[in-house]
Amino acid sequence: MKVTLERNHLLKSLSHVHRVVERRNTYPILANVLFKAGDDRVELRATDLDIEVTESVPAMVSTPGTTTVPAHTLYEIVRKLSDGAEVRLETDGGENMVLTSGRSRFNLACLSPDSFPDLKSGAFPHEFDMPAASLRELIERTQFAISNEETRYYLNGIYFHAVQNTQSGALFRAVATDGHRMARAEIAAPAGSEGMSGIIVPKKTVGEVQKLLDGVDGDVKVEVSDTKIRFTVGPVVLLSKLIEGTFPDYDRVTPKNNDKQMMVDKAGFAIAVDRVSTIASDRGGKAVKLQARDGLLELSVTNPDHGTASEEVAVEFDTDGFEIGFNARYLLDIIQQIRSESAVFLFNDANSPTLVKEQGTEANALYVLMPMRV
Amino acid sequence: MKVTLERNHLLKSLSHVHRVVERRNTYPILANVLFKAGDDRVELRATDLDIEVTESVPAMVSTPGTTTVPAHTLYEIVRKLSDGAEVRLETDGGENMVLTSGRSRFNLACLSPDSFPDLKSGAFPHEFDMPAASLRELIERTQFAISNEETRYYLNGIYFHAVQNTQSGALFRAVATDGHRMARAEIAAPAGSEGMSGIIVPKKTVGEVQKLLDGVDGDVKVEVSDTKIRFTVGPVVLLSKLIEGTFPDYDRVTPKNNDKQMMVDKAGFAIAVDRVSTIASDRGGKAVKLQARDGLLELSVTNPDHGTASEEVAVEFDTDGFEIGFNARYLLDIIQQIRSESAVFLFNDANSPTLVKEQGTEANALYVLMPMRV
Repeated sequence: MKVTLERNHLLKSLSHVHRVVERRNTYPILANVLFKAGDDRVELRATDLDIEVTESVPAMVSTPGTTTVPAHTLYEIVRKLSDGAEVRLETDGGENMVLTSGRSRFNLACLSPDSFPDLKSGAFPHEFDMPAASLRELIERTQFAISNEETRYYLNGIYFHAVQNTQSGALFRAVATDGHRMARAEIAAPAGSEGMSGIIVPKKTVGEVQKLLDGVDGDVKVEVSDTKIRFTVGPVVLLSKLIEGTFPDYDRVTPKNNDKQMMVDKAGFAIAVDRVSTIASDRGGKAVKLQARDGLLELSVTNPDHGTASEEVAVEFDTDGFEIGFNARYLLDIIQQIRSESAVFLFNDANSPTLVKEQGTEANALYVLMPMRV
Repeated sequence: MKVTLERNHLLKSLSHVHRVVERRNTYPILANVLFKAGDDRVELRATDLDIEVTESVPAMVSTPGTTTVPAHTLYEIVRKLSDGAEVRLETDGGENMVLTSGRSRFNLACLSPDSFPDLKSGAFPHEFDMPAASLRELIERTQFAISNEETRYYLNGIYFHAVQNTQSGALFRAVATDGHRMARAEIAAPAGSEGMSGIIVPKKTVGEVQKLLDGVDGDVKVEVSDTKIRFTVGPVVLLSKLIEGTFPDYDRVTPKNNDKQMMVDKAGFAIAVDRVSTIASDRGGKAVKLQARDGLLELSVTNPDHGTASEEVAVEFDTDGFEIGFNARYLLDIIQQIRSESAVFLFNDANSPTLVKEQGTEANALYVLMPMRV
C-alpha cells in the first residue's frame, strides 16, 4: 500500500472511526484501524465487535493494498501534524507502515488485515431516510434516562419503534427509562419506517451516532434488521448490533388520568431545586419534598448530617396541601429538558408516577418521574 | 451571632478559605469554617492543620458571636445564591445556623468554635514586602519541578532563600527539583529578606498562594520564622507550616562548565518533541533521543510495542555527532517555560546534566535536566 492524503481529511475520518476503539482490548487487532486503499480513495474502518464505523477519504493511491495500525496512536500523530500538511503512508508489505509528513517520520507496527473482524451487516428489511435534526432531537430528548444497570440490559439503550393509528398519524417514537424516570419523544414517521418492530439501540451506539450528527444538515439513512442497525451520515457508515431483549411496556406506566396540574417557571424552579439540593446527600437519598401552600410551592430537603434547606417558588396550582417527593437529580435532569418557559406537572398522588411536559400542544416529548417517599 | 452580608463579598471570601479544607477529615471540626462576627466585620477562617487561611469581610453585625459550619456545603450554597443578594446568618446559640436569602432558607449544623484549631503563628524574625507579580513569577517558574515523592519530603516544595555577594547584588531565589530536573528563578532581594536562611514552602501552600495572587497588583507581605511562613495578600492572610528538612545543595548539581551551546526555535522544537513522543510509552521510559547532524537536530523515539518516530529540526549547533537522551515529558515541561523565541541548551556530555536557559542576558531563570540513557 502506498498512498498520499491530506492531513485534514485523514484527521476528520480518524476522529470518526477511532472513537469506537476501546482503550483495552483482549485481541490486539481490535486496537487497530483497517486501511483499504483502492481507486483514489482509502477506506478506514474500526470496530469493538458491537459497533463498526467505516469511512472513505479521497487519496492519491500509488499502490493499492490493505493493512491495520494502532488507531489511537495514529489519531494522536495525525492530530499533531500541521494543518493542511500532506501525509504519505507506505507499507513494506510486512510488519510496518511508514508515515511521513514534512520532516516527521513514523514507523508503526502493523497487524495483518486478514484477522480484522467483519460485523457482517446481513439484509436490512427496513430502510428509511430521516432528517439529521430529527434523529438528533429524539436522542437529545431521551438519552439521559438510559439505564446503566447491567442486570437490566434491555434498558441500556433507546427503544425506537413505529406507532400506528394515532390521532396524529403514524409516529416514530424514542423511549428510554431506568425504572425511576422515563423520557419519550416522537416525530412523524419517516416513509419506510412503518411496520418496523421495536428495536433497542445500545447507549454507546447512541453516543457515537450523536457525535456523528453534530453539525450535520440533510438526511441520514437508517437501515434496520432484527439484530442490527446501520446509520449512513454523509461519508460515514456506522453499523451496530441491537440489544436483544424485550423493552418493557412503557405505555402501561405512562399516567393517563393525572388531573392535578401545576405550572411553574422553568428557570426559577430549576435554580431553586439546585439550591436546596446542595445539602442533600446520598445517605438521605437526595430527596426533595414539594408542598403546595397558598399559591406557593415549598421545596425542602432534610439531611440528617448537614441540616435542612427550603425555598418557595410561585406556581399556578389549585390543589392546596398537596405533597410529593422526588430524587433531586432526576427532577433537575427532566426540568433541564423542558424548552418552554413554563413546565407543566401533572400529579395523581404522592405514590404515583408524575407526568412532566412542555407548555403548549406542539410539544413532542413527555417525561414520567417516579416519586420518592419523604 | 446575627449578621447580614453581601452575597458577593461572602462568596469571594469563602472561595479563598474553603479550598484548604480537605474533603475527608479525621476530625469533623476540620470540615468547618470558623465565623467570628465583631465590629462591622465577620472573620472567616479554615485550616487543614498545615495551612490556615483567614479573611475578614464587611458585614452588618446585629449580634456579635462565633460559630463553625461545614465549609464546602456553605460555599456551594452561597455560590448558588443570586448575584448581589443579601445573606442573613443567625445562630440560635446552639447547634444550628440559619441562613436566609430571598425566599431560600438553610439550617446548617454547627460545631462549637471552642475546639477549632489555632495554628499559632509565633514570632516572625523576618518580614518583607514584595510585588505580587514577582512572587507569582518565582512560583510559575519553578512549581512544575516540585517532587511528589513522599519519601523525599524535603523536595515536596519550593526552596526560597536569600543569596548574598553575587555580581548582581543580593538576590531572592526560588528552587524546585525532583532529582530529574531542577528549576531556579530569582529576583532582586526585597528589603528585609537579607539574612533569611533557606525555607521549604510545601506544594499545597504554593498552589494556594498562587491562586490568591491571581489578578492581584501591588505588594504582598511575607513573614518568615524557622517553622512557619505567613503571606498577607490584600484582606487574606495565609499561614503555613514549612517543611522541616534540608534542601539539597542544588548549586553542586548546577553545571558550570557546559560548553556545547545549541540554539533552537522554542515553538518548533516543542511541537517536534510532542509529535515524536506520541509513540513513547511508560515501558520505554518515554525517552527521546537528540542527535546533531549537518546543522540539523534529529529527535527520535523508539517504542518496542508501537514502532519508531523521528523528526528533524533546524538548530544552531557546532558539535556534529553529539547525542543525548531525555525524558520527553520533562523536556517539554522545561521548553514550555522558555519565554524567549529561542531556547539555549548547554551540554557537557550524554551522561551529565544539561542546562536550559532563555536567550539574552536578562533572563532570571535557569533549568537543569538530567539525561536518560537511550
